[in-house]
Amino acid sequence: MTRQALSVLTLGVADLDRSRRFYKEGFGWTPVFGNEEIDFYQLNGFVFGTWLRDKLAEDMSRDAAPSGSVALAHNVGSEEEVAPLMDRLVASGGRLLRAADAPVHGGFRGYVADPDGHAWEIAHNPDWPIDEDGSVRFEPA
Amino acid sequence: MTRQALSVLTLGVADLDRSRRFYKEGFGWTPVFGNEEIDFYQLNGFVFGTWLRDKLAEDMSRDAAPSGSVALAHNVGSEEEVAPLMDRLVASGGRLLRAADAPVHGGFRGYVADPDGHAWEIAHNPDWPIDEDGSVRFEPA
Repeated sequence: MTRQALSVLTLGVADLDRSRRFYKEGFGWTPVFGNEEIDFYQLNGFVFGTWLRDKLAEDMSRDAAPSGSVALAHNVGSEEEVAPLMDRLVASGGRLLRAADAPVHGGFRGYVADPDGHAWEIAHNPDWPIDEDGSVRFEPA
Repeated sequence: MTRQALSVLTLGVADLDRSRRFYKEGFGWTPVFGNEEIDFYQLNGFVFGTWLRDKLAEDMSRDAAPSGSVALAHNVGSEEEVAPLMDRLVASGGRLLRAADAPVHGGFRGYVADPDGHAWEIAHNPDWPIDEDGSVRFEPA
């Protein structure tokens, strides 16, 4: 049984300073982490990221869409749960974008697109604990 | 001060039965509501919707993207808070997609795109209460 939960929502952006202005001054939000390519904001029960869209596209093994791109992430409790869930998603009409492997920033993940092309990252991130209700909190490594 | 919260995440889909198979059989999730054009799932702290993409595009006053479309929603506590937040987002680099008005399904909302084109609906929905931490739970009208 998979938790009905989103762990991370990532928007691909072309210019991080421009996005910071929108989210920090427009919404009035404060990031919990930021570097030269990504900002993370702790939202209600999940982490919201704005990531340079070329980096996001590379991570998804997918072309960067001109109008920006989006990745949804569902985190699971162990590395062993990643591939079986990805297999089930593909068997249910999804399309494999990237087979699961270990990214340089740690953990284990792959990507499956839903039938309309919306990308879902299925991930195990040992640094970000998952609450009982599926909520995820940003925990700097 | 705006809560750091997402209220609704809506994916535009071409075929609701095809999406149901992916989310219900693939992820194993159960919708809290569904009709001939939209399904809602209660996720951790927000509502996840899959909506026929032509309907979503019409609601956003925007063309349906060929690869599917996405709308993020930030709900506020009153109708009076909608326009000032939209104004601030536009002043911070956002682009007005649809000025705030009252949709037929109730409430009050408008749409602003972030600098990369990601659509944010700013909405007051009197039927969906907002918790202290900004979480939203689906409450059938």
